[in-house]
Amino acid sequence: MKLETHVAHFTSPLYLESGRILEPYKIAYETYGSLNQDASNVILICHALTGSAHAAGRYENEKKSGWWDALIGEGKAIDTSKYFVISTNVLGSCFGSTSPMDYDYPKQTPFRLKFPVLTIKDMIKAQKHLLSQLGIHHLYAIVGGSMGGMQALQFAIDYPNFADKIISLASTYATQPWTIAFNKVAMEAIRRDPRFDNGNYAKDAFKEKGLDGLAIGRIAGHISYLSPDSMNNKFGRNYVNNDGLFELFGRYEVERYMEYNTNNFAKLFDPLSYLYIIKAINTFNLSRGYDSLHEAVLRINADITLISFKSDYLFFPKEMEHLYNMLQRNKQNASYYEIESDYGHDAFLVEIEKFDTIIKNKLNNNKTP
Amino acid sequence: MKLETHVAHFTSPLYLESGRILEPYKIAYETYGSLNQDASNVILICHALTGSAHAAGRYENEKKSGWWDALIGEGKAIDTSKYFVISTNVLGSCFGSTSPMDYDYPKQTPFRLKFPVLTIKDMIKAQKHLLSQLGIHHLYAIVGGSMGGMQALQFAIDYPNFADKIISLASTYATQPWTIAFNKVAMEAIRRDPRFDNGNYAKDAFKEKGLDGLAIGRIAGHISYLSPDSMNNKFGRNYVNNDGLFELFGRYEVERYMEYNTNNFAKLFDPLSYLYIIKAINTFNLSRGYDSLHEAVLRINADITLISFKSDYLFFPKEMEHLYNMLQRNKQNASYYEIESDYGHDAFLVEIEKFDTIIKNKLNNNKTP
Repeated sequence: MKLETHVAHFTSPLYLESGRILEPYKIAYETYGSLNQDASNVILICHALTGSAHAAGRYENEKKSGWWDALIGEGKAIDTSKYFVISTNVLGSCFGSTSPMDYDYPKQTPFRLKFPVLTIKDMIKAQKHLLSQLGIHHLYAIVGGSMGGMQALQFAIDYPNFADKIISLASTYATQPWTIAFNKVAMEAIRRDPRFDNGNYAKDAFKEKGLDGLAIGRIAGHISYLSPDSMNNKFGRNYVNNDGLFELFGRYEVERYMEYNTNNFAKLFDPLSYLYIIKAINTFNLSRGYDSLHEAVLRINADITLISFKSDYLFFPKEMEHLYNMLQRNKQNASYYEIESDYGHDAFLVEIEKFDTIIKNKLNNNKTP
Repeated sequence: MKLETHVAHFTSPLYLESGRILEPYKIAYETYGSLNQDASNVILICHALTGSAHAAGRYENEKKSGWWDALIGEGKAIDTSKYFVISTNVLGSCFGSTSPMDYDYPKQTPFRLKFPVLTIKDMIKAQKHLLSQLGIHHLYAIVGGSMGGMQALQFAIDYPNFADKIISLASTYATQPWTIAFNKVAMEAIRRDPRFDNGNYAKDAFKEKGLDGLAIGRIAGHISYLSPDSMNNKFGRNYVNNDGLFELFGRYEVERYMEYNTNNFAKLFDPLSYLYIIKAINTFNLSRGYDSLHEAVLRINADITLISFKSDYLFFPKEMEHLYNMLQRNKQNASYYEIESDYGHDAFLVEIEKFDTIIKNKLNNNKTP
């Protein structure tokens, strides 16, 4: 599978939900597989908070493959020998699409905190423009987890006849205060970090030395991506070293994990992008713009597959269940699977083998027993 | 009920679990009710992370009564017309007992980061010395919630014949990595705050302007004290103002709650005390010093009452259940109640009416139906 990152540039205005306009803008994307003659085999992949367009395959010199490589590829559940798969980077992200660090055209300076607030609706609208530019006017399926699952569901409502199948994992119909509170840790930690400097830090300075605020916010994030059981299994009450017990900053293994991962993460991710994307997650609400959730959901024509994870402490299974029950009552096409897992929210990234058959069957129109 | 804060000074050494010595030290405490002639009516109250000795009653000019006032007083579940109630401030806390900001005797400078790491075992040992000084050599009961519940259980194991009844609420037998991870947010946020200055901030400077690091850590704390349901009931997805949606720092009500409470809190609590107390919570493990949890638990002679809250996301009911099952198998005296509640961990402070009868009956040797 030859890999290439593309960037599509748009000079027409993108009308945002806030009433503001983004112009010009760009979308980074990757594709896998080949478009068939009637363009009927397209699957769109939507990523989560810190994901990128690089969902599958491995570039030369890369240590790890794309974030959903176990799911996407020849012979895999999302089979690139059959389907033409497109994965885009969301607006606002620091991995190639237009972000707060891009120029506030026609000025030659970055937007920074003047970047417009983006919503999930804005993100998918931009993706739809990209697809149009590629000559794709209908999708076979849209698949995404977490914030990607929000995008998939928003597509189903805003563009009811655009995709045949929607598969949303580890997601919700509207972000609940529990999740907004977790994001608040990051928002305050970044905002109050002196090095954030009200968004005026030097571009890419974080690559040298990550922002403490982002690392701290990310610790809260990691808590919400794991679960009490996954932490017990992974770390227990083990110490990094035996002296840890009576040293104030002596560390348990769970603490080392948090430090290591979050310090590294803070060197990879732009703090402004992080703020704008968590804001988009916070404001996600399928009913916005419609009279009620029920009215929004009634618009859906696609076949909906909802997959939740029993131990997900960020988007709880009952949130997906609520949506499923509504679809059922409306006699809309929907299936719901609650996967047994100890891995917490992260399960949608790490326990692919627990749900890939569901996705495969759904795409191949086979029943899942 | 006349209120008075007492401070007991000790000039004999306190031998700590770390091998270090604290000398001299002091313990702040309050008492309610009267000691009977044979000193058989004493109940010790143990507080949680940010509590103080001020568990009940109200001082002149105070807006709020003590933190467990609904439980402790004349005619209440812990009836001060019958019982002599003692409530102490834990070692390490900034509310009157010896803390990192006290002098590192004989030096005339505060300990700060040279303060010894304290454990729950150390805290209760100091309380036991206080009781001895007061001429109290046996307790009728020890009652505490959260970290207070840890102290109650530790008393039962370290001093098996010291108290007749142990009542532990919203607690655990050993702090799990989930909780350590929440504490890690505060630990890193405080430690990396430039104003923390490696512990060298001016004494009481936080009262003027609270440390951002503590406020941020406390947001994570508040998440763990609430629950998804309590947040839904309390805040839903409401905005503080309608502009909030499209302003990056526009706020949901849950965000305002977090900001308001944590900024205030950071002006009330010393950051070093916070670090030392969360460390004591992290290291809590009833089995430490014994061959196993089973061996530790077998030492208990007291009648144990364990109360957990269904929606507690900090110390999950199954942790208390684990301990109860062990006590049951050993044919030790124990009862366990899991209280229906949406309030999360905070229920032990705010839903007194849901468990006060259990405590009353237990203290009066009546059965709870």
